Amino acid sequence: MFIVDTDVHNYWSSAEVLLPYLEPYWRDFLVRGEKPGPRGSFPHGHRPWLHPEGFSRHDIRPETEEDNYLIMKEKHLDLYDIDVAILTADEPLEASTLANYHYANALVKAYNDYMIDWWLPKDSRFKGSIIISPTDPHGAAAEIRRLGGHKDIVQVLASHGSQRPYGDPFYHPIYEACAEVGLPFAIHFGGQGGVNHNAVASGPTAYYWETHALLSQPAMTHVVSMISNGVFEKYPDLYFVVIECGVSWVPSLMWRLDANFKALRKETPWLKMLPSEYCRRNIRFSTQPLEQPQNVRHLWETLEHMDGQNTLLFASDYPHWDFDAPTNLHIPPAWRDKVMGLNALEVYKRIEAPAASARVA
Amino acid sequence: MFIVDTDVHNYWSSAEVLLPYLEPYWRDFLVRGEKPGPRGSFPHGHRPWLHPEGFSRHDIRPETEEDNYLIMKEKHLDLYDIDVAILTADEPLEASTLANYHYANALVKAYNDYMIDWWLPKDSRFKGSIIISPTDPHGAAAEIRRLGGHKDIVQVLASHGSQRPYGDPFYHPIYEACAEVGLPFAIHFGGQGGVNHNAVASGPTAYYWETHALLSQPAMTHVVSMISNGVFEKYPDLYFVVIECGVSWVPSLMWRLDANFKALRKETPWLKMLPSEYCRRNIRFSTQPLEQPQNVRHLWETLEHMDGQNTLLFASDYPHWDFDAPTNLHIPPAWRDKVMGLNALEVYKRIEAPAASARVA
Repeated sequence: MFIVDTDVHNYWSSAEVLLPYLEPYWRDFLVRGEKPGPRGSFPHGHRPWLHPEGFSRHDIRPETEEDNYLIMKEKHLDLYDIDVAILTADEPLEASTLANYHYANALVKAYNDYMIDWWLPKDSRFKGSIIISPTDPHGAAAEIRRLGGHKDIVQVLASHGSQRPYGDPFYHPIYEACAEVGLPFAIHFGGQGGVNHNAVASGPTAYYWETHALLSQPAMTHVVSMISNGVFEKYPDLYFVVIECGVSWVPSLMWRLDANFKALRKETPWLKMLPSEYCRRNIRFSTQPLEQPQNVRHLWETLEHMDGQNTLLFASDYPHWDFDAPTNLHIPPAWRDKVMGLNALEVYKRIEAPAASARVA
Repeated sequence: MFIVDTDVHNYWSSAEVLLPYLEPYWRDFLVRGEKPGPRGSFPHGHRPWLHPEGFSRHDIRPETEEDNYLIMKEKHLDLYDIDVAILTADEPLEASTLANYHYANALVKAYNDYMIDWWLPKDSRFKGSIIISPTDPHGAAAEIRRLGGHKDIVQVLASHGSQRPYGDPFYHPIYEACAEVGLPFAIHFGGQGGVNHNAVASGPTAYYWETHALLSQPAMTHVVSMISNGVFEKYPDLYFVVIECGVSWVPSLMWRLDANFKALRKETPWLKMLPSEYCRRNIRFSTQPLEQPQNVRHLWETLEHMDGQNTLLFASDYPHWDFDAPTNLHIPPAWRDKVMGLNALEVYKRIEAPAASARVA
């Protein structure tokens, strides 16, 4: 089966891998400046929640920088016969939490260059994401234009933690640049804390397990805001990809949204379709972490309500604690070819379609 | 059929109905002090969203204070043969948005006295809610103890907008008082703005229709927070009633919550059951606004996933713009007796069960 894993985290052992890619001015900040952890940690504003077990799978223990690739190759890419792995970085998404947006821009720029230099050449299965810090949309747009033409770059990626809902006109320069270079705009779980708006409605919850469950909320807000503000009227071909935010909340939200829109559409006369129709046309959701009811049929019924066969993209979230193995993904068997790989070809145009023989293997 | 309507708004034409119930000190604030609207408006911090059509049904046009009851009687209670109407006030819930918690306490106390004096004697179908301002939990607890023994008071009610998630220990004095007087604690859509935490994850959205769809988020946060902080271990008989926040989001959230709890339960060793088990035992959801998918079977499948037959309580939200008529509630026909009335008897112990003949009528 053709497998595109849309969420593979290319870890580093130390943020100092970025040093060669930083201008001397910013290199000084990373070397001599305050960091939220020991030497080698990445500068970001920390979220108020601490994961009680750490974010990584306990069986992934790189000892060298090279191990980050070698272990991924052995325990993930080769083991599960992944055809394409979209690299989604890890700590660089947290640059969005920094108040100094110049520094944030410098850090993600350095990461992007490092990723293109160090990761992409290592394995023909790799495709890259341009990380941006959305706090400075014009700076982000410049970065998208700088690297968006690279043949192995397949998307623009930001944290789902943000200062505002992503449909806000403040962010539109990002979508203009995405449309110009022909890349999807994706958001990934992360970027809580620092300058970003509280990620949970009604204020911070206390424990990580409850907070993680509620961290679908920023994705709900962004999905709604992108639709209501007409981003998909301005850029009808733009794909918005929601990564690692869960999926089973989508039908409920769309039902509510369509009903309200029908009653009060006069607020947004620029919209030509129902909210759920924009969602179906322009938004895709990565599967991980796929919800786990006691009865899997309950999940499947819900995924039917969002046309999951056509709107879901497989993601493993390697090597995080709540990783989903491709062999253990509880979706309807008839959907597997599309969700595991073929749907990704619609969104990520630079990924090559497999030979016909591979598609049915 | 025995019908308990768990969300009937007893409007006033002017907040000046409260004047006889306020101490002279606070009467001066209401008469001479700044108000958010013209004379007769209720003091509160306004939300940043303005409903583009106003909140009321356009066919409800009271001209006198008495009309507020007479029109409700004609167009709602008699028309739909409602057996019990739980009064949920309207503007008084917004007292929770005021910075001056003494003033907020005085306003809700005056409302409660006015409601007991003016509304409850008017119609034997009426049951009352004690409105509290949760910004001062000890003041709220005192109000619950002052009036909680009244035979026609059936619940304690606060806005779903709040400064913190409701499971926070800050609010536990409220639940202690509820448990003491034997009343459920309910939250109702409202109380955005003012001192309350932003009600939407990632910051305010721009339009009312999208915001209204996202205003399930505070309810999600509160449900999770009440469970995680062990409120239902401390008060195992307490019912938490979630009014006007939608219902179809519950299964998705519980799936996520149970999975995370299983992985990280060490953060909350005081919990003895799965989150979904506390939800099933202690939390009830009012139906309005019931989500409206194109295919009603999709909704019914989702309601099955939350054991809706036993966890839903009928509500009309009379006389608001998105009112649901009892004759037009799209729930599975076999559930009607329970959802329309019998489930409420479990939660609201002071509501008298109908004679056996009425139950099957």
